[in-house]
Amino acid sequence: MSTNYNIVSLIRKKRNKIHLTSDEISFIVSAYLAGDIEDYQVSAFLMASFLNGLNTEESSALTNSMLHSGQIVDLSHIPGKKVDKHSTGGVGDKLSLVLAPIVASAGVPVPMISGRGLGHTGGTLDKLGSIPGFSTDMDLPRYKEIIQKHLLVLAGQTAEIAPADKKLYALRDVTATVEYIPFIASSIMSKKLAEGIDALVLDVKYGSGAFMKTSEQAIELAETLVGIGEQFDKKTIAFITNMNQPTGYKIGNWLEVEESIDCLKGKGPEDTAYLSHLLAGAMIYLGGKADSLENGIALSKRQTQNGEAFSKWKDIVAEQGGDVSFIEDPNKFVLPSFVFELKSSKTGFVQKIDTYSVGMAAVELGAGRKLITDVIDPGAGIVLEKKIGDKIEEGETILKAYTNKPTVIDEVTEQLFSAFSIGDEKPEAQPLVTHICDSNGTRAFEL
Amino acid sequence: MSTNYNIVSLIRKKRNKIHLTSDEISFIVSAYLAGDIEDYQVSAFLMASFLNGLNTEESSALTNSMLHSGQIVDLSHIPGKKVDKHSTGGVGDKLSLVLAPIVASAGVPVPMISGRGLGHTGGTLDKLGSIPGFSTDMDLPRYKEIIQKHLLVLAGQTAEIAPADKKLYALRDVTATVEYIPFIASSIMSKKLAEGIDALVLDVKYGSGAFMKTSEQAIELAETLVGIGEQFDKKTIAFITNMNQPTGYKIGNWLEVEESIDCLKGKGPEDTAYLSHLLAGAMIYLGGKADSLENGIALSKRQTQNGEAFSKWKDIVAEQGGDVSFIEDPNKFVLPSFVFELKSSKTGFVQKIDTYSVGMAAVELGAGRKLITDVIDPGAGIVLEKKIGDKIEEGETILKAYTNKPTVIDEVTEQLFSAFSIGDEKPEAQPLVTHICDSNGTRAFEL
Repeated sequence: MSTNYNIVSLIRKKRNKIHLTSDEISFIVSAYLAGDIEDYQVSAFLMASFLNGLNTEESSALTNSMLHSGQIVDLSHIPGKKVDKHSTGGVGDKLSLVLAPIVASAGVPVPMISGRGLGHTGGTLDKLGSIPGFSTDMDLPRYKEIIQKHLLVLAGQTAEIAPADKKLYALRDVTATVEYIPFIASSIMSKKLAEGIDALVLDVKYGSGAFMKTSEQAIELAETLVGIGEQFDKKTIAFITNMNQPTGYKIGNWLEVEESIDCLKGKGPEDTAYLSHLLAGAMIYLGGKADSLENGIALSKRQTQNGEAFSKWKDIVAEQGGDVSFIEDPNKFVLPSFVFELKSSKTGFVQKIDTYSVGMAAVELGAGRKLITDVIDPGAGIVLEKKIGDKIEEGETILKAYTNKPTVIDEVTEQLFSAFSIGDEKPEAQPLVTHICDSNGTRAFEL
Repeated sequence: MSTNYNIVSLIRKKRNKIHLTSDEISFIVSAYLAGDIEDYQVSAFLMASFLNGLNTEESSALTNSMLHSGQIVDLSHIPGKKVDKHSTGGVGDKLSLVLAPIVASAGVPVPMISGRGLGHTGGTLDKLGSIPGFSTDMDLPRYKEIIQKHLLVLAGQTAEIAPADKKLYALRDVTATVEYIPFIASSIMSKKLAEGIDALVLDVKYGSGAFMKTSEQAIELAETLVGIGEQFDKKTIAFITNMNQPTGYKIGNWLEVEESIDCLKGKGPEDTAYLSHLLAGAMIYLGGKADSLENGIALSKRQTQNGEAFSKWKDIVAEQGGDVSFIEDPNKFVLPSFVFELKSSKTGFVQKIDTYSVGMAAVELGAGRKLITDVIDPGAGIVLEKKIGDKIEEGETILKAYTNKPTVIDEVTEQLFSAFSIGDEKPEAQPLVTHICDSNGTRAFEL
């Protein structure tokens, strides 16, 4: 750590395809955070790493240096194994809102630090922010207080957590070095490991609405994430899940809160419920409250049936300043003034959904940010009426869209219209989960 | 040129091994010079280009944009074809000081803009600077005035010539992106093309004292340089020359001026004279004052024999403020106080010289800069008494070193001692010039 290296020599080494030692990686991260080496040198290093590759040891060293660049939360005063979940992001992915209260209500502490929306995908923090009054801003003592009281806390990332990751991510974003698996994995894991967790469940998505377009890429990312988790002695299970269409029917911040309430009451859409119980089950299993994944899933279902998960949800909303009356009666929320329906121009079956376009359409409607300074409209979004495999008649509604920005309607309508392929044949059903990946390796997933 | 591109997209393109258009390259160079894109973005682009490659079109576009980033000198008022020479740099390379007055005295205008020493190699500007009073600083009107009057001018690079190259070179230097042939070639050619030349002779060196270690690398660089020259309609001839030992016997700024005076009087070392006449002959041929390379060489030799080259040299020294009495009587120059001799520990033949180490030893003695702010000692340097193939007895002198820094003597002695390999067998003679490369391609060189 304290050794001083010549940064130009380190860039040259990586440029010449030579692997760096952990001390060398650690020097780059800490000297960069301290301002002792320059942005332009680190960006050259990032590009050389992107093109020539980082091996497992270098990825772990990168994670470790970013993790130790800030505070690591100590939750050892809270009994039990602390477990969190991370998703690589998708459209309509409200699973955190469902599984966090389920798992906590089953007795497993869930210290959850979430991020904002990125590109076409929503962020848990923005979804929580649509609940009137709900706050995810807190200092560390308050964070510890909430999780101790409820076995659950839903916070935003603070400046104290992995500041080097924040600085490096900002540089990657403007130098075309974002989409590299070891960078993505170390960024995710440095933040998650700083939360004070003992185990982690990962939802690694592939498909038209995910950052990884193929299941192969998703598996590679999952294996890198699990490998880093293992090196830090945290039990880690990753599921490879299908994001070729939105999760559930609702996309948009408040709309997704609404749908997650349905799930917590056992009335949610089938895919959303299935994925929530799978991930919650894995968390309960890793948290030691079930002796197998199957029993974890069974317990997860029981927690929605007996009302305990929903009750936990109301408790945490109240604790974090949210107005529980909106949770109890979601119809209280006033949706945007402009609603338009997309209708099918032919009869047939929904074959494919360009989920990226649907996500970007939601952003246009006001549900996300194009610039970091954009303000989110909590009510804006899309409610699907048809999904892949559904039969549709000419003139029948495919979806409804909600916005306060009437000027975007024409463009968004066109964009959404092209996102749906309607054809004669009923398409084959796609699996929701294809693989599981943990310390025993990667294998096809069947339950 | 005026199109606005997204720099992150351009970096990503190059990262993904897609070739950029000339407009895109031009945008990067001009926006960087204007301060509209950041160092850290350009360094990521440079690293991506280094690792994924630039093709001929991209290299030409890079040269063209750097060339047009500053002034291009117009010498059309001066009759005749203006010809310059560029060397990729070596140890003891004083050839410019010999050939420039030869060629000008033969009636071919030589507008020569030179650089300072770099690493282990000396720079023509520093050598000229060792002549008391000599100045290479001048504005453009004065530059034109001198070449019109003498058919020769010896200037330093001004801020108006290829400023984008200067800014990019500084960035490459601190981001480990120097040693890439298209970058090296475009940097050289953008500056040379800005001088107002019609043709160019290149001395591309390989070996232990050169930047290119092998003849293959030197050929690749030469072909890139000639290719760029052709695209700009400038006749270009490159010679691939051997730099496995210093050129001549003297290394150091004034010492090299001394040896070049010997050459101009026809009394110089064989290798130095041979290379000077070859390169001068090629310049005279390209300048149209001889109908073949052979006749150019013959004319070059005649100009040293008839005293015209030496007379031209005295004229230009006087014109640029130098004290001609030092040229007429080099012994006037007071060499440094500390002189030490390196003696052989055994009897045999000089097998090899680590020429890079000899160059770095000269830098340590005061003949070059380790930091840009270091002040050069014009008299410091090395005078070889033995070169490769020479017989040497135990205790006989290999070289003499001159310095004003007695504290470095011990270390430099050791360094120089290890640079010379002495063995029993007389080594096979190495050719001084291996290849010629021009618009007709590359072929083995024999004269």
